[in-house]
Amino acid sequence: MTRTETNRSRSSNSNSENSGDGNGGGGERTNAMRVIVPLQGVVQGRGGLVLGSVIPCAFFYFLQFYLKRNRKNDSDSGDQNSASSSTNSDSNSGLPDRTRSQSAGHLTELTGLPRSLSRILLSPRNSVSVSSRANCVIKGGDSPYYLGQKRVKEDPYDESGNPDGVIELGLAQNNHKLSFEDDLVSENPKEEAISDGLSISGIASYEPCDGLMELKMAVAGFMSEATKNSVSFDPSQLVLTSGAASAIEILSFCLADSGNAFLVPTPCSPGYDRDVKWRTGVEIIHVPCRSADNFNISMVVLDRAFYQAKKRGVRIRGIIISNPSNPMGSLLSRENLYAILDFARERNIHIISNEIFAGSVHEEEGEFVSMAEIVDTEENIDRERVHIVYDLSKDLSFPGLRSAAIYSSNESVLSASRKLTTLSPVSSPTQHLLISAISNPKFVQRFVKTNRQRLQGVYTELVKGLKELGIECTRSNGGFFCWADMHGLISAYSEKGEIELWNKLLNIGKINVIPGSCCHCIEPGWFRFCFSNLSERDVPVVLNRIRKVCETCKSHN
Amino acid sequence: MTRTETNRSRSSNSNSENSGDGNGGGGERTNAMRVIVPLQGVVQGRGGLVLGSVIPCAFFYFLQFYLKRNRKNDSDSGDQNSASSSTNSDSNSGLPDRTRSQSAGHLTELTGLPRSLSRILLSPRNSVSVSSRANCVIKGGDSPYYLGQKRVKEDPYDESGNPDGVIELGLAQNNHKLSFEDDLVSENPKEEAISDGLSISGIASYEPCDGLMELKMAVAGFMSEATKNSVSFDPSQLVLTSGAASAIEILSFCLADSGNAFLVPTPCSPGYDRDVKWRTGVEIIHVPCRSADNFNISMVVLDRAFYQAKKRGVRIRGIIISNPSNPMGSLLSRENLYAILDFARERNIHIISNEIFAGSVHEEEGEFVSMAEIVDTEENIDRERVHIVYDLSKDLSFPGLRSAAIYSSNESVLSASRKLTTLSPVSSPTQHLLISAISNPKFVQRFVKTNRQRLQGVYTELVKGLKELGIECTRSNGGFFCWADMHGLISAYSEKGEIELWNKLLNIGKINVIPGSCCHCIEPGWFRFCFSNLSERDVPVVLNRIRKVCETCKSHN
Repeated sequence: MTRTETNRSRSSNSNSENSGDGNGGGGERTNAMRVIVPLQGVVQGRGGLVLGSVIPCAFFYFLQFYLKRNRKNDSDSGDQNSASSSTNSDSNSGLPDRTRSQSAGHLTELTGLPRSLSRILLSPRNSVSVSSRANCVIKGGDSPYYLGQKRVKEDPYDESGNPDGVIELGLAQNNHKLSFEDDLVSENPKEEAISDGLSISGIASYEPCDGLMELKMAVAGFMSEATKNSVSFDPSQLVLTSGAASAIEILSFCLADSGNAFLVPTPCSPGYDRDVKWRTGVEIIHVPCRSADNFNISMVVLDRAFYQAKKRGVRIRGIIISNPSNPMGSLLSRENLYAILDFARERNIHIISNEIFAGSVHEEEGEFVSMAEIVDTEENIDRERVHIVYDLSKDLSFPGLRSAAIYSSNESVLSASRKLTTLSPVSSPTQHLLISAISNPKFVQRFVKTNRQRLQGVYTELVKGLKELGIECTRSNGGFFCWADMHGLISAYSEKGEIELWNKLLNIGKINVIPGSCCHCIEPGWFRFCFSNLSERDVPVVLNRIRKVCETCKSHN
Repeated sequence: MTRTETNRSRSSNSNSENSGDGNGGGGERTNAMRVIVPLQGVVQGRGGLVLGSVIPCAFFYFLQFYLKRNRKNDSDSGDQNSASSSTNSDSNSGLPDRTRSQSAGHLTELTGLPRSLSRILLSPRNSVSVSSRANCVIKGGDSPYYLGQKRVKEDPYDESGNPDGVIELGLAQNNHKLSFEDDLVSENPKEEAISDGLSISGIASYEPCDGLMELKMAVAGFMSEATKNSVSFDPSQLVLTSGAASAIEILSFCLADSGNAFLVPTPCSPGYDRDVKWRTGVEIIHVPCRSADNFNISMVVLDRAFYQAKKRGVRIRGIIISNPSNPMGSLLSRENLYAILDFARERNIHIISNEIFAGSVHEEEGEFVSMAEIVDTEENIDRERVHIVYDLSKDLSFPGLRSAAIYSSNESVLSASRKLTTLSPVSSPTQHLLISAISNPKFVQRFVKTNRQRLQGVYTELVKGLKELGIECTRSNGGFFCWADMHGLISAYSEKGEIELWNKLLNIGKINVIPGSCCHCIEPGWFRFCFSNLSERDVPVVLNRIRKVCETCKSHN
């Protein structure tokens, strides 16, 4: 069959080459067609179908290529209008080198000219642009998350000095000055230790960016204490970085390439947009949890999000979970953690377990289970997909220390992370200060305990007060936050309504909280209150201010 | 003409539809052709040329599209073999949601199963990969620059404790312990200041990541002193970061998009490969300077590099210069700086002026001119393209402090940089320590002076000794380095020969230096000696060791 066809087309080919007379009667037509359709000869000729398709395709391919190339040059000259007329023609002309040298020589000569003269000769007056991603970063700072912080900075509350100032309930810091001064300084012999640790020898030379072994050992001990000794952390698997933000950024960089994505159950920390996306180019796919499920992570929704992303051609490289969760403050159960690990195994993706509030579990019967404990019982292969972020500044109520840790069993991740800490190192004074502060196990034990009691006290007071105002919070067992349902106070059940209420809280109530939309909560009307900023004495002040806002809202409704 | 053709082709079209009998004698051929060349009818038909080309092109286009899509899915499943057989067919099937929900539901159900059982049901056993860029970072650490540091760490020289250990002449640190302890501590009332600065209130709360205004004012004062008060720096134009590496990274991110490039005259700092390229995806185009020109930047070569890059479709966003230069230690003249500014203006690109050794100009008559001074006399538009990197750790011989500054007049750059410092902040203890250390102008004045004298002393001794060994250095007026021409000692005039000599210096001589290839020097045989690591007493030891290596080399030649 094939052979016959080939013969036929071969004969018709030779016919058309001989002006097509052999087949009789077709002569005139064939001639005309050769003018009209230049491809006909080829189509009818040897390998007709193949060549008849390949040649236009090849033309088309090179046309695409040519257009792409030219477009690139155009966009270049668009931003670099300077000298564009001369240089563009340069870059396309056959003999550019001579022209370039002349122009460059001209420049060198100019060096000798008086400045005023050289300025006249060099005409371009274009403003110089920054990168498009820098512009994204600049714009990225206009959310309520940052605007509220700005307001607090301008007009901060102070009981005696500025009683009408804005109270900070947005920023996640544990500001128990009492806790810190009492425990770390007076009751413990730490004031001296701090000065000792900062002896000149300790800060005068380069030290490993990823942390001194002495510090890593202290951190491993502190982490074990924070997890009630359920896990024993290996100091050699720790990499220290200048804060949890850079720890998450480094992990994002190491686990995903630009354009890849992480699944993030929401509501989530408002900081991920910055830490994960800004510099690494990694995308976040939000997986919504709902109040009806008590904001628990649903495996069904997680799975659906995974496949929807895959269908769109987005490669999912991991999932980021917070435990205790941020903003809800709930603890993930052992079953939850196993289900997430199973999901990650089945999809062959990584897990970033954000455990920055591990040491701040304030509910007495609350059991915090670290992902490190879960994978301790697993095979190596599963250990390698789990990476834990731990924050020393949070649990030590030492926010200014800017020190966090990555804990991983994955050698590649550890190796790359260690190198990347050169770009966000913990300074030597801070390392020595930390060693002094946390290498005494007795102190650590007592500090963690006192800190928990204090958090529990403020939390209970605040939640009780909010309830009396008709505002319900989800149950929080750990971390610094209440997650409050204020949808009854919003004028419209939408993000706009939520932001309106946030504005009222900030401007009428003078308290800065985080609206749920910043945490990517899909249900409007939820707010994150960072109660760890408060002393128990501050709680009634805050409640009074919220009452005022409630009254305004009700009078308007 | 056109009309006639159209009619003809129309008639031939209808003919072929009617089995092609109308043209006589061609019946059999046409029928055969319809089987062989399915496009013939179209080619001979209406708009023959157009359709005959467009249809294959369209097919080709969609084939490309299909292949691209499938390739993406393949690479996905390549790494995510887990469940690939079921899921891949899912993603292409029309009704994926039901299947997904089932699979997900299955997962949720599993949560309730005993662990051992759920493990059997979940089969995949794939190792989990890290990102391709993390692999680049891991491999990127195998250059002599990092290998030498590792050796020093394993076996560090100590006059009494380990006299046969490796002497560090690679790492750029000013390790004048005497200088630091004498000046900063004993002669000045700073020991107290350090403890004062580190009072608990100073470190217990969040402080601006980009630096406290108090610190910025102190830094501006220090920078003015370092530049001999030729410029007055505006504290509001400063952004502090955790080291010069992160300052350069932040600027690279802000000024260039991934795939854009910076021009960097070479030999250059070996750190740029890490700071500029690793995380930002920005490329470096090296612009070679030669020993024949005394390693001065040639405007002709700069210009040629710019156009060659442009021709290749690479967008150049700026030029990075070091002043005092690294590794040569030479100072850029006022004329050099104006020429570079003119070049940047003409090409409408940015300038990153790396002035991290500004305070370490050791030649008495050496005049350091900051790019800040040059642009002070320029119009706004030119100020906006100049960004200065200043390092407090270098000039203060305080490397462990990890503190540097970006100085810019460009509001967009400042705004984005401030936000990005969250990812590489200076910790509060370090900020307060720095304020204590540098806010006393008298101390700063004396410190800078003593530091210069000490650097000058060691430099003169070392260069004199090297000359006696037949090793010439270029003239260095500032910074921590000698740039030594050792090409006479290499066995082959190539990078290989250079690395061989570096190995001898490290293993026979037991000194760690930086081979020129790490600085992207195109002439083999040059080495960077960081003399600031040495005390004057160490110089004879180093010279003796080099003599030993010289003798080995000569006996081999």
